[in-house]
Amino acid sequence: MDKYTLGVDFGSLSARAVICRVSDGSVIAQYEQSYPHAVMTDFLPDGTRIPAGFFLQHPMDYPFALEESVRGALAAAKILREQIIGLSLDFTGCTILPLNQKGEPLCVDAAFESHPYAYVNMWKQRNAQREAQEIEAVIRRHDPAMLKRYGGHVAPEMLQCKVLKTLREDPEVFAAADRFIEAQEYMLQLLTGNAVRNTSMAAVKSFWDAEKGYPEYLGEVHPVFEHPEKTFLRGRMVRPYESAGGLTERMAARLGLCAGIPVAGGHYDAHAAMYALNVQGGEALMTLGTSSGLVCSDASFREVEGAASAMWDTILPGRYAYASGQPAFGDTLSWYVQNAVPQSVQEAAEKENISVHQYLTREAAKLSPGECGMVALDWWNGNRSCLQNGNLSGMLLGMTLTTGAADIYRALLEGISFGMRRMVDSYREQGFDIRVLNTCGGISFKNQLLMQILSDVINLPVRRSRNVPAPAVGACMLSAVAAGAYDTIYDAMAHMHCLEDEVIYPNSAQAETHETLYREYLLLHDTFGRGVNPVMNTLRDITKKAKEQ
Amino acid sequence: MDKYTLGVDFGSLSARAVICRVSDGSVIAQYEQSYPHAVMTDFLPDGTRIPAGFFLQHPMDYPFALEESVRGALAAAKILREQIIGLSLDFTGCTILPLNQKGEPLCVDAAFESHPYAYVNMWKQRNAQREAQEIEAVIRRHDPAMLKRYGGHVAPEMLQCKVLKTLREDPEVFAAADRFIEAQEYMLQLLTGNAVRNTSMAAVKSFWDAEKGYPEYLGEVHPVFEHPEKTFLRGRMVRPYESAGGLTERMAARLGLCAGIPVAGGHYDAHAAMYALNVQGGEALMTLGTSSGLVCSDASFREVEGAASAMWDTILPGRYAYASGQPAFGDTLSWYVQNAVPQSVQEAAEKENISVHQYLTREAAKLSPGECGMVALDWWNGNRSCLQNGNLSGMLLGMTLTTGAADIYRALLEGISFGMRRMVDSYREQGFDIRVLNTCGGISFKNQLLMQILSDVINLPVRRSRNVPAPAVGACMLSAVAAGAYDTIYDAMAHMHCLEDEVIYPNSAQAETHETLYREYLLLHDTFGRGVNPVMNTLRDITKKAKEQ
Repeated sequence: MDKYTLGVDFGSLSARAVICRVSDGSVIAQYEQSYPHAVMTDFLPDGTRIPAGFFLQHPMDYPFALEESVRGALAAAKILREQIIGLSLDFTGCTILPLNQKGEPLCVDAAFESHPYAYVNMWKQRNAQREAQEIEAVIRRHDPAMLKRYGGHVAPEMLQCKVLKTLREDPEVFAAADRFIEAQEYMLQLLTGNAVRNTSMAAVKSFWDAEKGYPEYLGEVHPVFEHPEKTFLRGRMVRPYESAGGLTERMAARLGLCAGIPVAGGHYDAHAAMYALNVQGGEALMTLGTSSGLVCSDASFREVEGAASAMWDTILPGRYAYASGQPAFGDTLSWYVQNAVPQSVQEAAEKENISVHQYLTREAAKLSPGECGMVALDWWNGNRSCLQNGNLSGMLLGMTLTTGAADIYRALLEGISFGMRRMVDSYREQGFDIRVLNTCGGISFKNQLLMQILSDVINLPVRRSRNVPAPAVGACMLSAVAAGAYDTIYDAMAHMHCLEDEVIYPNSAQAETHETLYREYLLLHDTFGRGVNPVMNTLRDITKKAKEQ
Repeated sequence: MDKYTLGVDFGSLSARAVICRVSDGSVIAQYEQSYPHAVMTDFLPDGTRIPAGFFLQHPMDYPFALEESVRGALAAAKILREQIIGLSLDFTGCTILPLNQKGEPLCVDAAFESHPYAYVNMWKQRNAQREAQEIEAVIRRHDPAMLKRYGGHVAPEMLQCKVLKTLREDPEVFAAADRFIEAQEYMLQLLTGNAVRNTSMAAVKSFWDAEKGYPEYLGEVHPVFEHPEKTFLRGRMVRPYESAGGLTERMAARLGLCAGIPVAGGHYDAHAAMYALNVQGGEALMTLGTSSGLVCSDASFREVEGAASAMWDTILPGRYAYASGQPAFGDTLSWYVQNAVPQSVQEAAEKENISVHQYLTREAAKLSPGECGMVALDWWNGNRSCLQNGNLSGMLLGMTLTTGAADIYRALLEGISFGMRRMVDSYREQGFDIRVLNTCGGISFKNQLLMQILSDVINLPVRRSRNVPAPAVGACMLSAVAAGAYDTIYDAMAHMHCLEDEVIYPNSAQAETHETLYREYLLLHDTFGRGVNPVMNTLRDITKKAKEQ
């Protein structure tokens, strides 16, 4: 009788449960459940106004979506519950919440239902910039070498930045919080009854180190950061493919699974996808969504310009994992469709009963590279790789009176692809031998043209996997290791990775034009990004002043 | 009994007849008549396909529109025909056509109805770029100083360029053409029976000089250019405010006027407006439409960067007239509304029953300077002033995920205003003491915000005249002088100029921000316009290659 594992991917808007066969990784069932409260940006459930810059979730949506998605997948799988030998989760991050003394989300207490800081503070809430600078200054004094593992700067989405902002802006919430942990860890506790911390999450988003623990000197910023492992971050350290504990009787009953099966530590979503696609040396993973990520690994540590993290052991044992990213990728195209696509295009798409993206992609595909006469800088949400500057902004250059929507869309597709190439080139410059770019998920199938442009611009084959839920499949692999079905995650990857795939090769006929266009992009990138012309920073200052008046 | 003169303004799409009282310039009646064939770009009347880059008119539309508009204005004026003591026209230019031996438009001959070159070649047909370069090279060899009066280059809209292209591409048309003259001159001949040339038009658009005539050495380009005054450009030279002859019996009957009244030489439309608004020393005229013009005069000759013409005596006797311009002004805003305004904005405007321009102007007015966080280079149709480069293109910089339509519209309003300031600054740099910017016409009343931004950015008062048909009023003044009601055009201007006006003063509270933004514009202007980063030229080359493949 076949054995299976269960992986549940907690995204920004929904959870998706997937059941994989342990022997070969086949996905035999999946089920997606949206979060009832989705992302809260305007009002809390009790009607309290949420300040600007907050992206909150309701933590009770997670157990609800877990139960619905797992039961849905089980119903579709038509297997015996005994055949499921383990489960694991993957989550967005850094996505944190405070728990009360009973281990429940603080916002559930009536006394805190009006406190935005008592809810889940999502990965994309990046309003702790001042706190980030403060923490960075202290680290720079004590251990500047450490910053190299974080891309040279402290980003505002780091756990300590979020906690510091909370304890300053809502000390009541911090005082009442027994712990302040990743949403993933809250769910692990719910499933196993154990307080645990995920080693990889701790390393990537809260400065934890396997040898040194948390940096004591952060106590200079605030005493609570001196030994957080004894207070709000306490818990046994668990690796992604280790068991955080057995599934409790109560949760087993709720989910329809056997009690006692191991629940693995799990990982962040983009990282979990690395396992699913079996991305090892000589390859990289592009996660393409509203934002993008570029993830790869190497046996040695190298200082890669623009890599936001470079960490030992966080994804693959015995290797450094590197990650870079564009803060707006699909978001740039969505911005365009929402804010600058004329009615005529919208109507033409409606008439054909296709989306505006489909319509514009088809029209843009009729243009050869360079035919639109434009070049775009893809910084609609700043730049978080080489330039590490959230004040940078988007640019479109080359418009004439005959420039149309398809031209602009094409320029944006090329612009976001140039941004990806710039990141890949940072690795190449450090001697990484990347030969294939893996990708998966919605946009890779929805937009064939974008995949071809990425392949052409970067001059590498792009391998996309069938529309599998890669992060959840990665979670299934982690549970398979935790359940003892494989000795190592490498074994699990070898047997369970998504086999069916398709490779898009660079079109050499277009290589020269793309190279010319990329050189132009690069010149603009350096002109506006490296201080030659700091107009984008100046504009931010002017805007800030204008808004204050 | 009051005396009146008649002025008829021939625009790109219609003719407008205006009747003014000679004593004070009051407009007592006006009537507009559209051209039945409007602008022909796709097909000739017989169905022949028109090649790309052509902008043609049907010359028989002019007499039709003349008669309808004059009769319409007369009917409204309720005065005796004897009270009208003279008339004059103003025209777009350089707008030319070939006439046959009988003095009729060549396209009227059945043998030529399928020849695009037999029709009216409009001012905006700029496809004789190669011919312009050829003629420029010859002038540079013989009389480089002359080029300074034409902005340093020969533009493709000069009469000789258009004629050279015609005789090469359709020698049949040229061979059959007895003359090849401005549409204004064709109309003067129709009205008076005399073959005349307008001295100002001859100077501004066909290299004529009051002392030297046409440059003989242009015979090197083609023999027909050696003595065109004896062949296709023959005719008595008439100044704008001199009589080209008396109105013929036949035309008097058609128009309902008295035979024998003088028909003045007239002028180009933008120049005629200079008279109407009484623009003299210390002032400049901005003509704001799809494109823009900046016209002023000075007692001495100075080499002004970006001035497309600098001519003795062409507008005001005893002074040099200077003109610069932006090839896309209102066109930039129209491009935006047609190509990049989202359905939501279009619907919001429709709901309020206002135009998209009105809606966006109102929303953009709610933003303080710099609040949109963007800066635009206004080169959607190249740059024809300082940079003299038709390959330059538009740029938008500063977009974020929250940038909306009103932000972009505001950036475009600021961008076209910065472009105007750059032209004004060229004159200031040469010591011109410009203290007021005059303007008139549609856009100056339709867009109050744009007027305020122009005033703020240039830091000068903008004086706009009530919605008078300024070019036609200018033509009325020219006829008043030709009819002997005034001794000089200066006298006519002193008595007949449009008195009612309104002045918009710079808002000093916003001066500093506008200055900062303009400095950023200027840096980008020089970076992309003066060869520091020639990306816009490169993109044109790439596009050209891409389209050829």
